Amino acid sequence: MSETIEVVQSNELIQKAGRAKAAASELANMTTQQKNAALHLVSTELLLEQEFLMAQNSKDLAAGKDAGMSESLLDRLKLDMPRLNDMAAALIQLTELPDPVGEVLEEWERPNGLAISTVRVPLGVVGMIYEARPNVTVDASSLCLKTGNAVLLRGSSTAIHSNKALVQVIHQALEKSDLPVDSVQLLEDTSRETAAEMFKLNDYLDVLIPRGGAKLIQTVVKNATVPVLETGAGNCHVYIDESADPEMAIDIAINAKTQRPSVCNACESILVHENWAAEHLPDLIAALQEKGVRIHGDAAVQQQGSSVVPVTEDDWETEYLDLEVAVKVVETADEAITHINRYGTKHSEAIVSSSTENADKFFLEVDAAAVYHNASTRFTDGFEFGFGAEIGISTQKLHARGPMGLPALTSTKYVIRGNGQVK
Amino acid sequence: MSETIEVVQSNELIQKAGRAKAAASELANMTTQQKNAALHLVSTELLLEQEFLMAQNSKDLAAGKDAGMSESLLDRLKLDMPRLNDMAAALIQLTELPDPVGEVLEEWERPNGLAISTVRVPLGVVGMIYEARPNVTVDASSLCLKTGNAVLLRGSSTAIHSNKALVQVIHQALEKSDLPVDSVQLLEDTSRETAAEMFKLNDYLDVLIPRGGAKLIQTVVKNATVPVLETGAGNCHVYIDESADPEMAIDIAINAKTQRPSVCNACESILVHENWAAEHLPDLIAALQEKGVRIHGDAAVQQQGSSVVPVTEDDWETEYLDLEVAVKVVETADEAITHINRYGTKHSEAIVSSSTENADKFFLEVDAAAVYHNASTRFTDGFEFGFGAEIGISTQKLHARGPMGLPALTSTKYVIRGNGQVK
Repeated sequence: MSETIEVVQSNELIQKAGRAKAAASELANMTTQQKNAALHLVSTELLLEQEFLMAQNSKDLAAGKDAGMSESLLDRLKLDMPRLNDMAAALIQLTELPDPVGEVLEEWERPNGLAISTVRVPLGVVGMIYEARPNVTVDASSLCLKTGNAVLLRGSSTAIHSNKALVQVIHQALEKSDLPVDSVQLLEDTSRETAAEMFKLNDYLDVLIPRGGAKLIQTVVKNATVPVLETGAGNCHVYIDESADPEMAIDIAINAKTQRPSVCNACESILVHENWAAEHLPDLIAALQEKGVRIHGDAAVQQQGSSVVPVTEDDWETEYLDLEVAVKVVETADEAITHINRYGTKHSEAIVSSSTENADKFFLEVDAAAVYHNASTRFTDGFEFGFGAEIGISTQKLHARGPMGLPALTSTKYVIRGNGQVK
Repeated sequence: MSETIEVVQSNELIQKAGRAKAAASELANMTTQQKNAALHLVSTELLLEQEFLMAQNSKDLAAGKDAGMSESLLDRLKLDMPRLNDMAAALIQLTELPDPVGEVLEEWERPNGLAISTVRVPLGVVGMIYEARPNVTVDASSLCLKTGNAVLLRGSSTAIHSNKALVQVIHQALEKSDLPVDSVQLLEDTSRETAAEMFKLNDYLDVLIPRGGAKLIQTVVKNATVPVLETGAGNCHVYIDESADPEMAIDIAINAKTQRPSVCNACESILVHENWAAEHLPDLIAALQEKGVRIHGDAAVQQQGSSVVPVTEDDWETEYLDLEVAVKVVETADEAITHINRYGTKHSEAIVSSSTENADKFFLEVDAAAVYHNASTRFTDGFEFGFGAEIGISTQKLHARGPMGLPALTSTKYVIRGNGQVK
């Protein structure tokens, strides 16, 4: 019995991956106009099918409630009119962005007369692995279609009715378009075993993109042999240098910590130069406490009041994603940089300082996707950077680092024109 | 006993990986001048220590002979004066290439006044896994030093004396330089178990680069969780279109197949349009046979003479790397493209044709790192492309595709300058 189930699972995975691969070679030849027309059709179909989508979503919501899912998870799972309208609007916005595919990045001629150019091409088939939010289904599909990639989606079992309904609606739209309907594939089998098989499907998938919590991402990174675009974890710091403007420093620290604590570019530790601390640490602590932030501090910070909890080694490594912060007083900018390079996750790091020299040192020596001088870490985001779309924020160093726009979903091809050259 | 050995192995791996990681953060801050000065010192030291290096190399050669190693493998293993001189010269050439690190790729300003730039930075620690050739030890180390990366080398046990001697000489040179001596680390433990541990050393290594045969590369790809730069396998085709100039087509096919059959950009299959074949196939077959090429042909090709062996399904998938070729007559350019996308390894593919339309179709639809019109596939090479250095030829789509020059050993960092911006 269990063996039969496994065979069925494999079949679905291989069949759908195979269909996506076949669709990918057709998709690579689609024009920008054809792709944008398809995105418009998906947008329209989402609006037309709102009732159906909400009805299917309500099955997932009911099952989630029965299973005791938390309010915040239920909220993430929910598809309502405003959210469906937002999805439809995002699809239209995507049609307005430049198509990276076909872009000529470089052209040169060799002494032997060969004319070489580097041209952007789609990656092929993108494997997307994500958690409860059903909007990722539409988001990932539309970004892939825009860049000429096929996508194999593996969402959460808790959102399976919503995801199936959304993909059905996308397929209805693709039927009316020039793009292959098979461009978007959803795995209905959400078992761990099939996910594990998907991680190693190198013959079909060109890249895996996990979207979700740190645990999901690490599971993919540690088990995949398909190349992974690693996104996510952000243990970000704000370092307040000796010469920092007090008001600016406190504004930036408060914004980075409290404006939206649950996201990866929020600040988790604040490092303060001792000379700045001598005068301004009480104001910083007061401002944090006023925002309801629980403070884990070193000995110097604990002197600010009994409500400061002693910081532990674990705190320096913790991504609280909540109204909590670890605070450390340092003797030098070098000590701050060493601390950040030891405990940071190479996501977003900020220095507040009036010294250009220290800012340049911080830029050079801190190893992170985004390094800031006198600005909040909260700006690490594809939209804030002006990319118009975001695949995620890469915390790895290969292929793409930091906020990823549409070009992160492309590769390149060398096109070489000759007139009979041989070696 | 066996447990003790494993602990020792792990210790060497972790210790050396840790030293490389510490060196990497120093290396990232070295100037182009400091790095070039170190490369000059390594070059000089290699020349000064020729006697020592050849003496150590002779131990590997003797062990290889005793073990019955083939003449061609012994030749790859050998370090003699001309080869050591070539290595020293290559190091000097490397100093003359532009340093990609620090290059500003893009700069823009956001409406809120944030000034963002994308700056090239080193990857960090490169793990290099390679086979018998000891020159890779110097080649990989010098490319990494030039790009500010530390390197952890894992060569073959058959070259261990040569590799240890080369790394000792590199260390002697680094002692005299500003660069950390620990920038180059060689694993003396060449066991499979330790290699398997190295494949999963995500906390220390930023990338793994396998250099060697298809089997080695696939072992790394299938087992590594550290991101891999996949290089190598090339099942390349030359397609001779209906309108191809006969002389040019035969020249290109002969060059791609026979100029150096053992390399990845050599041609393994020739596809011929039936209308071209009707008149010119006998000339092509004769030219190949004159060069001593064994021909595996389909029914149409077999009619050219009894020396043509019937082609099998396996042949289409085979990278002969020898004076053998599979030949197929096709009815259309589409059939050729479909065949290439089915059996090719996405390395280098060529069309010979007088039709710009068919060339453009081939460029668009063939999925490969390098696509050629009227030129030999043998040009897929970092030096032929004018990069001045080559890390390898990537056959994957993430990060780098095709011949990889120095920039393939770099990542990027977003540097953001503000004046107090908060979100």
